[in-house]
Amino acid sequence: MSIRIGILGYGNLGKGVEYAIAQNDDLSLKAVFTRRDPSTVKIMTKDVPVYSVNDAAAHASEIDVLILCGGSANDLPVQTPEFAKLFNVVDSFDTHARIPEHFANVDKAAKEAGKVGIISIGWDPGLFSLIRMYGNAVLPEGKDYTFWGKGVSQGHSDAIRRVKGVKNGKQYTIPVESALERVRNGENPELTTREKHTRECFVVPEEGADLAQIEKDIKTMPNYFSDYDTTVHFITEEELIKNHSGIPHGGFVIRTGTTGENNQTKHTVEFSLKLGSNPEFTSSVLCAFARAAYRLNAEGVSGCKTIFDIAPAYLCKQNPDELRSHLL
Amino acid sequence: MSIRIGILGYGNLGKGVEYAIAQNDDLSLKAVFTRRDPSTVKIMTKDVPVYSVNDAAAHASEIDVLILCGGSANDLPVQTPEFAKLFNVVDSFDTHARIPEHFANVDKAAKEAGKVGIISIGWDPGLFSLIRMYGNAVLPEGKDYTFWGKGVSQGHSDAIRRVKGVKNGKQYTIPVESALERVRNGENPELTTREKHTRECFVVPEEGADLAQIEKDIKTMPNYFSDYDTTVHFITEEELIKNHSGIPHGGFVIRTGTTGENNQTKHTVEFSLKLGSNPEFTSSVLCAFARAAYRLNAEGVSGCKTIFDIAPAYLCKQNPDELRSHLL
Repeated sequence: MSIRIGILGYGNLGKGVEYAIAQNDDLSLKAVFTRRDPSTVKIMTKDVPVYSVNDAAAHASEIDVLILCGGSANDLPVQTPEFAKLFNVVDSFDTHARIPEHFANVDKAAKEAGKVGIISIGWDPGLFSLIRMYGNAVLPEGKDYTFWGKGVSQGHSDAIRRVKGVKNGKQYTIPVESALERVRNGENPELTTREKHTRECFVVPEEGADLAQIEKDIKTMPNYFSDYDTTVHFITEEELIKNHSGIPHGGFVIRTGTTGENNQTKHTVEFSLKLGSNPEFTSSVLCAFARAAYRLNAEGVSGCKTIFDIAPAYLCKQNPDELRSHLL
Repeated sequence: MSIRIGILGYGNLGKGVEYAIAQNDDLSLKAVFTRRDPSTVKIMTKDVPVYSVNDAAAHASEIDVLILCGGSANDLPVQTPEFAKLFNVVDSFDTHARIPEHFANVDKAAKEAGKVGIISIGWDPGLFSLIRMYGNAVLPEGKDYTFWGKGVSQGHSDAIRRVKGVKNGKQYTIPVESALERVRNGENPELTTREKHTRECFVVPEEGADLAQIEKDIKTMPNYFSDYDTTVHFITEEELIKNHSGIPHGGFVIRTGTTGENNQTKHTVEFSLKLGSNPEFTSSVLCAFARAAYRLNAEGVSGCKTIFDIAPAYLCKQNPDELRSHLL
């Protein structure tokens, strides 16, 4: 009696969900839905069908939770409300500013259908949000800091690749160690964008390209690079493939706060992630919340939920007695 | 319309709760209950009465949540079930092995009375448990490590003070940095007790005491010190008061795990606390969960709960819209 999972979208995130399901014996993959021609999509799990996303409705009764693995810019704002009419759904919607709007859309659809839709799951938004929230609840007089990296920013890598003369490239976001130390020391610094992160670019130029111009175009690019100290390295395509094919990421959430009669006692709460693969880790978080979506819906709950609304025990395979005995 | 809090037991923890209430404008202190003669207990908050614990029942209607600030060895196993018959209660019961029994006792009393009893709140058990649980849920193939310190262990300090020739003393538990590094590097080491922590003792000897004998008695003490590398420093009472009067603590929870087709991708999740005052931080956590106890009970929930059973949003003063907009 395992929880039957469907995957919508078979890119890095969808593959990560497939790996993660294999690590959880109470979850089983029942179907993959794709916008591509299903006959062109080969998945790893044996004897699991790949369907066109257009046929999803016909398989609604075979799936307990559909994990949506599309992008936040164009896919999820449409897909999550749409599929919440048919399935319990979980997504990794990560456009922070549009979360309230996305929540309202998913809530309406899920409530009408009697389904659960869990949005914005992953690590930021996700586990980082959780730590920010516990930190605020426990140390109301304090200050939050979030640092990202060292890791690959897909958006910044894409931006590099749009520069004239660039054949390929990858960008790493790197937290400034001295800024982290000042925060950990309880100095409560006011940090500018430039003081928090640096950006390191590995660029494969086209043959005969003007390297000085490429470097200038990158470093002065508004929004993406102009507010940061940026380093540009020119490398070969072979080096890029050999040394920069991974999608690592991570970061730090730190809350510093004070307690006591005169707020004289200092405390530091720190959470950090060092992820070998950003999409694989995000997929693993999605799977834990798929378990929660199933359980909540089985209890009669419907509507949109975020990581803030779900009691931690819903995420774990173990029953409450086991959790209290072994993890508390 | 603030949540009316009562404190039972006015030691370090009770005082910490009083400080924490002052930082949360939706909580107000309504009464302190003590086993001492109430006339001898002076509290900081103006115009708040101190009552004998024997009169608690008479004030049940004035209190929304009673925070129990007694010890886990003798007080809480009796007090929490007893007062859950009259109040919503929160405690910091920290005897890990006896949690299932304590849970059952509190659950029975609280259910019969229609109250909520939240147990084992603080940082370990508490926030550390939570991180262990999220870590297990998200990375099912992995390994947990918990390190404590650098911080004062009350139990070990008490043990030192029982040694012949010792006038006063304080003991610090210190995590071994090289062990922490091995864990962070994903080596998944099997660590012995000795490899994880060292113990450092600051001892004030009685005049004319045999220092060599004291050092030997401490270092060979079974359960407390014999399994550790222990350092003993002899100091004066003045030095002890000047340099070792605080009650700092903290520690690290690390989960390392793997994902991917062949479990080849490594991830590290790390949470750490650096606490200027162990009881003041614990008190702050208790207050956040007092808010949750009140809200849950107002929704009609009763029975015993742990940190695993409570959706994070219940801990925060902000409403769900604000949480989604600002912390997610």
